[in-house]
Amino acid sequence: MRMDMRFFSDNAATVCAPVMAAIESANSVDTAYDGDALSMSLDAAFSALFEREVAVVWTGTGTSANALALAALCPPFGVIFCHDEAHVMMDECGAVEFYTGGARLMGCAGEGAKLTPAILAARHDAIRPDVHRMQPHAVTITNATEYGLAYTPAEVAAIGAFCRARKLRLHMDGARFANAVAHLGCSPADISWRGGVDALSFGFTKNGAMNAEALVLFDPELAGNIRIRRKRAGHLLSKGRFVAAQLLAMLSGNIWLDNARSANAAARILADSAASRLLYPVEANELFIRLSAAEAARLRAQGFDFYDWGDGAARLVTSWNHTESDVAPLAAAIMAL
Amino acid sequence: MRMDMRFFSDNAATVCAPVMAAIESANSVDTAYDGDALSMSLDAAFSALFEREVAVVWTGTGTSANALALAALCPPFGVIFCHDEAHVMMDECGAVEFYTGGARLMGCAGEGAKLTPAILAARHDAIRPDVHRMQPHAVTITNATEYGLAYTPAEVAAIGAFCRARKLRLHMDGARFANAVAHLGCSPADISWRGGVDALSFGFTKNGAMNAEALVLFDPELAGNIRIRRKRAGHLLSKGRFVAAQLLAMLSGNIWLDNARSANAAARILADSAASRLLYPVEANELFIRLSAAEAARLRAQGFDFYDWGDGAARLVTSWNHTESDVAPLAAAIMAL
Amino acid sequence: MRMDMRFFSDNAATVCAPVMAAIESANSVDTAYDGDALSMSLDAAFSALFEREVAVVWTGTGTSANALALAALCPPFGVIFCHDEAHVMMDECGAVEFYTGGARLMGCAGEGAKLTPAILAARHDAIRPDVHRMQPHAVTITNATEYGLAYTPAEVAAIGAFCRARKLRLHMDGARFANAVAHLGCSPADISWRGGVDALSFGFTKNGAMNAEALVLFDPELAGNIRIRRKRAGHLLSKGRFVAAQLLAMLSGNIWLDNARSANAAARILADSAASRLLYPVEANELFIRLSAAEAARLRAQGFDFYDWGDGAARLVTSWNHTESDVAPLAAAIMAL
Amino acid sequence: MRMDMRFFSDNAATVCAPVMAAIESANSVDTAYDGDALSMSLDAAFSALFEREVAVVWTGTGTSANALALAALCPPFGVIFCHDEAHVMMDECGAVEFYTGGARLMGCAGEGAKLTPAILAARHDAIRPDVHRMQPHAVTITNATEYGLAYTPAEVAAIGAFCRARKLRLHMDGARFANAVAHLGCSPADISWRGGVDALSFGFTKNGAMNAEALVLFDPELAGNIRIRRKRAGHLLSKGRFVAAQLLAMLSGNIWLDNARSANAAARILADSAASRLLYPVEANELFIRLSAAEAARLRAQGFDFYDWGDGAARLVTSWNHTESDVAPLAAAIMAL
Repeated sequence: MRMDMRFFSDNAATVCAPVMAAIESANSVDTAYDGDALSMSLDAAFSALFEREVAVVWTGTGTSANALALAALCPPFGVIFCHDEAHVMMDECGAVEFYTGGARLMGCAGEGAKLTPAILAARHDAIRPDVHRMQPHAVTITNATEYGLAYTPAEVAAIGAFCRARKLRLHMDGARFANAVAHLGCSPADISWRGGVDALSFGFTKNGAMNAEALVLFDPELAGNIRIRRKRAGHLLSKGRFVAAQLLAMLSGNIWLDNARSANAAARILADSAASRLLYPVEANELFIRLSAAEAARLRAQGFDFYDWGDGAARLVTSWNHTESDVAPLAAAIMAL
Repeated sequence: MRMDMRFFSDNAATVCAPVMAAIESANSVDTAYDGDALSMSLDAAFSALFEREVAVVWTGTGTSANALALAALCPPFGVIFCHDEAHVMMDECGAVEFYTGGARLMGCAGEGAKLTPAILAARHDAIRPDVHRMQPHAVTITNATEYGLAYTPAEVAAIGAFCRARKLRLHMDGARFANAVAHLGCSPADISWRGGVDALSFGFTKNGAMNAEALVLFDPELAGNIRIRRKRAGHLLSKGRFVAAQLLAMLSGNIWLDNARSANAAARILADSAASRLLYPVEANELFIRLSAAEAARLRAQGFDFYDWGDGAARLVTSWNHTESDVAPLAAAIMAL
Repeated sequence: MRMDMRFFSDNAATVCAPVMAAIESANSVDTAYDGDALSMSLDAAFSALFEREVAVVWTGTGTSANALALAALCPPFGVIFCHDEAHVMMDECGAVEFYTGGARLMGCAGEGAKLTPAILAARHDAIRPDVHRMQPHAVTITNATEYGLAYTPAEVAAIGAFCRARKLRLHMDGARFANAVAHLGCSPADISWRGGVDALSFGFTKNGAMNAEALVLFDPELAGNIRIRRKRAGHLLSKGRFVAAQLLAMLSGNIWLDNARSANAAARILADSAASRLLYPVEANELFIRLSAAEAARLRAQGFDFYDWGDGAARLVTSWNHTESDVAPLAAAIMAL
Repeated sequence: MRMDMRFFSDNAATVCAPVMAAIESANSVDTAYDGDALSMSLDAAFSALFEREVAVVWTGTGTSANALALAALCPPFGVIFCHDEAHVMMDECGAVEFYTGGARLMGCAGEGAKLTPAILAARHDAIRPDVHRMQPHAVTITNATEYGLAYTPAEVAAIGAFCRARKLRLHMDGARFANAVAHLGCSPADISWRGGVDALSFGFTKNGAMNAEALVLFDPELAGNIRIRRKRAGHLLSKGRFVAAQLLAMLSGNIWLDNARSANAAARILADSAASRLLYPVEANELFIRLSAAEAARLRAQGFDFYDWGDGAARLVTSWNHTESDVAPLAAAIMAL
């Protein structure tokens, strides 16, 4: 499918050239699993990026990264707060329940799929603290959110402070963390550990990798537990160097950030063309726009592929490899509606 | 590490050229997950190979393939018979217990890690059929076994008949299925469904792929359940086409078989050099040899890397890319001991 | 505590005399677990009551009855619809998640904790039927509901029809099933299997037993699976005859119905005294009334014990052994407010 | 069945008079669950018995006590060492796997179902300490063992020391703990916490209670976790006072010890009659004797009920209420064989 037609999702985009090159370069014999030189260098590489010591566990999917993190942060009998429309709630087929051994995701409403301390406090404090009720143990937020909004450093910090006050652990689903950083122009640290995040699922696959996500642990004591759980879940690839190579390639020269900027810029062009239709501000690489069924049909008739978002709305997602010229036809088509 | 020094395991071997080429070719936009054209063609490709209709679920690791299969074949309260030294028992960190939700692996002794109907019957029939005891539901055998022996078609069929008679489901861990087929010179069908196997973890990663295993289901009704479990376990890669591409590349032109033959041939050369030391016949790509600590030290001093197998023994594994000249130095070194 | 002061819950009421007598009578040697004569006669006794063949599995708690039933009706990756305030959701500490191995309870709003086909359809049909979303497998309703309302035969049948149409299994939490039957004046069959219920947690403990619940299975094929799960959960008491004896004693002479009628009658007296305060019609043995903090304090100052139900409301529960004279003081006190 | 005929098991024995009386006395209104006065007094009562502060969690079955304890002592990915013929391994239908969320019981051989540090060390130290193997976290021993042998204080202490050295937690299944104490003439403390036991499933049901076991926690930090798990498993009875009453009744006046002494004394009489047939010393209330099929048939023809123990052997179990005259006929019959 041509890139100028595909706005369905960033999850099937192509793999960027430096990643493909890194995969080829990794094709020599080394130690299996995560004992190879590339895997062994991840902690240092991510520690540099995050401006502090971190432990990194690679894995092939965002779902496994999220579930591994939450299993380490919440006991089987605990509650994890998330947004009603969080990916962990809606799109991971119960992976969190599976990995935790039965913990409960408790969804909260929140504009633009964004949570706030007030929203969390209302849910949290309504839970009678006795043995009959499942008790809260963790919070997971998505940055950028499922509606393409970025939590600012202050917003993350406010949630982090709430979590510390209630003794909850904080996880961030960063499937589009790069897009959030690109939008905010902040340091990755500013919207993660400086705000109180304990574990971050830092996504690379949507952003130009093939199958590589970094579970970044700001509490290094979590790493041992998570490495065991990763093996037990069948996610410890025998040729793990091919995953580590992808992550290192994307960190090198800040390709992860450039790719995200490209995707965001493409989304910006579309947003400008659809300004009057926007359901949410466009801060990352996703647009949610008002679009009647007839309008959607007209766009599809021109070949554009996108996702219906209930009645009268649509989701458009740009990818790291959408150029300005790739998005121009759709921008024009929207303006012409 | 040089190939002529590495006999530690086949699990970290390089990726063969056709697979690398297929991965590069797959780098165009297509549908995400397993909806792409490559993934959609797997059923047909494997059906042709297995001479009957099969359903295939790709996954990135043998551990996940085994655990997914057994979770579909055994309830959480059931027993799965395996060999005492089976990979599922020894090397998968409880993945089967995790995926099944608490089923029990019951290990059985057996020469060369091979089970027989008699061995299984003795364990099975000792289990009092009441609610206090966990009841048997499945059997898993490994072909080639953990000691590099191949179950023949007749041996598989005997176990398959035992399973049918006891109403047990039969799984085969085929991490080195290709090596077994190469040794036996039979059809893949002969040591799988024709012998009563319900589900086969058909390994490609050790045999030249990057991270691709095919869970082959001879009972097509299992596929739906397993596809859900794969997603829930975080194994449904968003860019699944890169996995499917590997499998298709290896089926094409029977590369899977050629690679296995190469590994087996390399092992044969070593076996001939170590004939008096062999603990088991060499039928696949693994050798288990008597080797004193002093002898092991002498080999290691020459740079050879291999696995100690308890006191006075060692395991040598050849890979798909070991050439005749790659193994000659080790063969000579063993003879010189 | 005096009965005329205790309206906190029916869950700590005394044990009625026939049950105590039956327990004493059961104190002779018999077979262990559920092989004794009393346990063996449960199927017949409940089949007579339900006017069809049923299988009955005794257990000591409502939580275990609910969780056992739902584990048999829903796979680990499935969704179970319940009311937002259902006991399984609010008061069982994740037992359903535990027993099912990670299934998800999906709460639905509904006046008086009552669900309808329309409510269920809205939730059900919003779930995209693909592998990323957890798919619905079962519904559980509570009769009488958590707000003391009885589902009528027609209401149950409507939900049953909805479930059949969507291929969902239907469970009823009948912790206060007896109170519902007493209110409706119907046959137990009318609000269970005739309405499409597959499994009923028929509660006896709140209604005068010591620790005895009957899990009544209208689909007899479920019994084997549930008996295994009961043992595995540690609920197969070795002296099970003492549980069976309680159930039989309460069926004998319809004590279960008489006790429920007494509790309902006591609630009716209170309801009449508080008619202007009722938040819901009083159909069983629970009242939810508007009650200011000051009023609550005045009642408590007189010794009455009850449960605050958020701001400005209270829950009053009558028990099987509340006589007319037991409730008169509270009725008078409410009128005097 | 007449007591002088029943030697099948102690698990279906009658309930002793003080327990029945205590149950009747408990039949007044009190707080639900474990908030009642009786439940609240358990910690003190057991602390007195064990000569130190302990926390006690009541539950209705030995299976739940064992599984709750082990779930608190071992993570889902851990190994628990037990004897090959331990009750948790053979007779609890996978409860440990269920409650722990997939931990593995690793059975060890040992004469008379007794483990030693040497046996444990051999199994433990053979486990390669890496992420591929499930790692040991706990040990569970049964006292008296499944073959009726008592671990002495020194034997327990040796295992306790082993566990501390390997950082393993130690659980004791004390379904017949009372019989062991009665045999040894020691303090309960001597074979529990003084020997390094972290948690003890102290059985009362076989010893004259109706359905009451005390999970005694010598590490008080475990109590909170276990109370949550008990609720989640559906074992928090709403009228918990009836369980607590049983435990208190049996502690009062040392009935638990008297009952165990009676059972042991009865077993001693049988042992004397069968001295030449004994497979193990008789230290508690179980005898394992050589008995041919013909001899077994002769005893059964006289009405005696007992358990075949494989070919040519039988198990005879005495109960707390077997009097000297109750066992005389069987003793005579054995001598007459």
